Amino acid sequence: MNLVIDREILLENLNTISRGLPVKSPMPILTGIKLYATDTDLFMTSSNTDISVEVTINDASLQIIEAGQTVVPGRFFIDIIRKINSKKVSLFLSEDKILIIKADRGEYKLHIMDPLDYPKMDFVSQENPLVISADVIKSIVRETVFATAQNEKKPILTGVNLNNTSGKLIITATDSFRLSQKIISIPDYKDFNITIPAKSLDELAKSIDNYGDNVNIYLSINKMLVTFKNICFQTRLLDGNYPDTTRLIPQEFPIVLKFNKDELAAAVERVSLLSPRDNTKDKEITYSIIKLSIKRDRIIEISTNNSIIGDAKEELIPTSVEASNSITIGFSSRYLLDSLKSFMSTEISLNLSGEIRPFIIKGENDANLTQLILPVRMEN
Amino acid sequence: MNLVIDREILLENLNTISRGLPVKSPMPILTGIKLYATDTDLFMTSSNTDISVEVTINDASLQIIEAGQTVVPGRFFIDIIRKINSKKVSLFLSEDKILIIKADRGEYKLHIMDPLDYPKMDFVSQENPLVISADVIKSIVRETVFATAQNEKKPILTGVNLNNTSGKLIITATDSFRLSQKIISIPDYKDFNITIPAKSLDELAKSIDNYGDNVNIYLSINKMLVTFKNICFQTRLLDGNYPDTTRLIPQEFPIVLKFNKDELAAAVERVSLLSPRDNTKDKEITYSIIKLSIKRDRIIEISTNNSIIGDAKEELIPTSVEASNSITIGFSSRYLLDSLKSFMSTEISLNLSGEIRPFIIKGENDANLTQLILPVRMEN
Repeated sequence: MNLVIDREILLENLNTISRGLPVKSPMPILTGIKLYATDTDLFMTSSNTDISVEVTINDASLQIIEAGQTVVPGRFFIDIIRKINSKKVSLFLSEDKILIIKADRGEYKLHIMDPLDYPKMDFVSQENPLVISADVIKSIVRETVFATAQNEKKPILTGVNLNNTSGKLIITATDSFRLSQKIISIPDYKDFNITIPAKSLDELAKSIDNYGDNVNIYLSINKMLVTFKNICFQTRLLDGNYPDTTRLIPQEFPIVLKFNKDELAAAVERVSLLSPRDNTKDKEITYSIIKLSIKRDRIIEISTNNSIIGDAKEELIPTSVEASNSITIGFSSRYLLDSLKSFMSTEISLNLSGEIRPFIIKGENDANLTQLILPVRMEN
Repeated sequence: MNLVIDREILLENLNTISRGLPVKSPMPILTGIKLYATDTDLFMTSSNTDISVEVTINDASLQIIEAGQTVVPGRFFIDIIRKINSKKVSLFLSEDKILIIKADRGEYKLHIMDPLDYPKMDFVSQENPLVISADVIKSIVRETVFATAQNEKKPILTGVNLNNTSGKLIITATDSFRLSQKIISIPDYKDFNITIPAKSLDELAKSIDNYGDNVNIYLSINKMLVTFKNICFQTRLLDGNYPDTTRLIPQEFPIVLKFNKDELAAAVERVSLLSPRDNTKDKEITYSIIKLSIKRDRIIEISTNNSIIGDAKEELIPTSVEASNSITIGFSSRYLLDSLKSFMSTEISLNLSGEIRPFIIKGENDANLTQLILPVRMEN
């Protein structure tokens, strides 16, 4: 292998490749990046247990003098190309199993690994794509991934579920204490029910961060392939049945409180400074509990009591109140703050149906997005 | 105690106070901030084992309705004032040992500690100040603190030594493998020889970050007090004799190489990507060793050999070369990069006197600043 390429083009593609590169791996060969140059194209591949990424470069600046393939130490290769500031980079595979990188007056020799040891990537065959805008994928990630489970007690909950029935795609994430649900419409595509690892969605969102066009999605039984530009991004899917969450979401709300989102978030952040941290119990639910009550004159009070440090309360005037009765409800301030961040709307509504029943948050300009939080029983 | 003050003024002073506030302390009372309101002034004090800070507020916005004193949970108090966005804050000490903070529609009640338990701060008496520009202190910190020892093997080396003899103040920091020395002139002040903890200097530099005027320095046997604006910043001094380093610095240099500082730093950074990391030996000296050699045509080569990953070399053309003989010298790339950052000059010189003798770095526009690095013996 012997080629010359613009450093910027190479770096941009390596940044994409880095999404699939493990820091450590039980298979050392996977800490390498596979380079494969044909007479016309340069392919680069990375893979960890969840994600595989492949880019195809046939940029005008690419001059392939000799085809060939190799596997280079991934992190070192990326770091070197990142730190170099020459216009051109030359990559030459010498016979004594060394990749020589030349850039201006710098020369780097990397010990390579055997490309025959690199596992073959089985990319899903590219037939019948589901075509979706990259921006839709980015919003789905922002709206749902944060609500996935952080621990592996129920592995299926560490992913985001996508359930498509007759063109209605329901996207769900839950850690059992809160739930995010987004519904979008995808006409003319077969029904499917898949669960994608949260981490894979995060990496996919970063990969398409500066990309605003459509992507193609291809599904197999246990993999999802996303293609865009010169990139193939594939992730494994989670095994197992995702729990049915449809009946978790209440449909009737005797109490609807509307707030300016930023005002509500600021008040909750301040009050939660003093909310008790219970490290002895399961953090997922006892973290930063605050209380919300409807007071006289329809003022909302957000408060917390901390027997060690002290108490905090903030009064808020909602932009609108519909309430047939008073209510005091306790919940994790962190869950509320996380969910508020998922909305684009300036005004959001809290929809309550009882002190120990789940409540939901909606935003006027966030169509078909529902955030749900399970309250905790307050002691008094 | 009962007072009202502009939130911004209070916060600005709390940010200063936070420099002396420990996260944890064997004396729990020190995790608090002491508030002491007279009829006219509000004093706030914090202290950890090394640093004590006191501010005196008599801002026009301060209205003291009732004098008094208390000790409030420090971090919580600062966090609340930081998150509040009201113009005014009211602090009221209720009889049941609670400080009530009111701001717009928020109310925070903090359990207080007994001010009688708070240790008395013995600030150095303010006589015969040494007057120095805050900018000089900031440059001294930038030029020397990084070279202090990070471990406590020789505790005195964790500080920066200031040795004043007849108006010539020599400032020295060393971890035994490298040394920073700055000389400034302070006429009309008594001789002294003190060693200031590095951490205290870092916090002092942060405290005066936005301050460009003079500060007053007062010394006692074991303390240094710095006063500026409405702030008293005091640090303990380190016990013990600082080693005599005057004879460490070579005076004659057969080889002088001048470089553009940024070009040299960039090349060293790139090469050091591949320099071996030896975690089994003492990291202080074996970290990121690189080689510098004078080549044919007076080109300088910076290189490293890593038996596992590979090799790197960069060629550099110095802006000037004075060399009676060739030389190959090995040293820590991190030490060189640290020292290069301490110079304002665009052009710096490496002054070498032998393969295993310390070399020094100077900058044309950094008068009286000397950085010294001890080389390591190369195997070949």
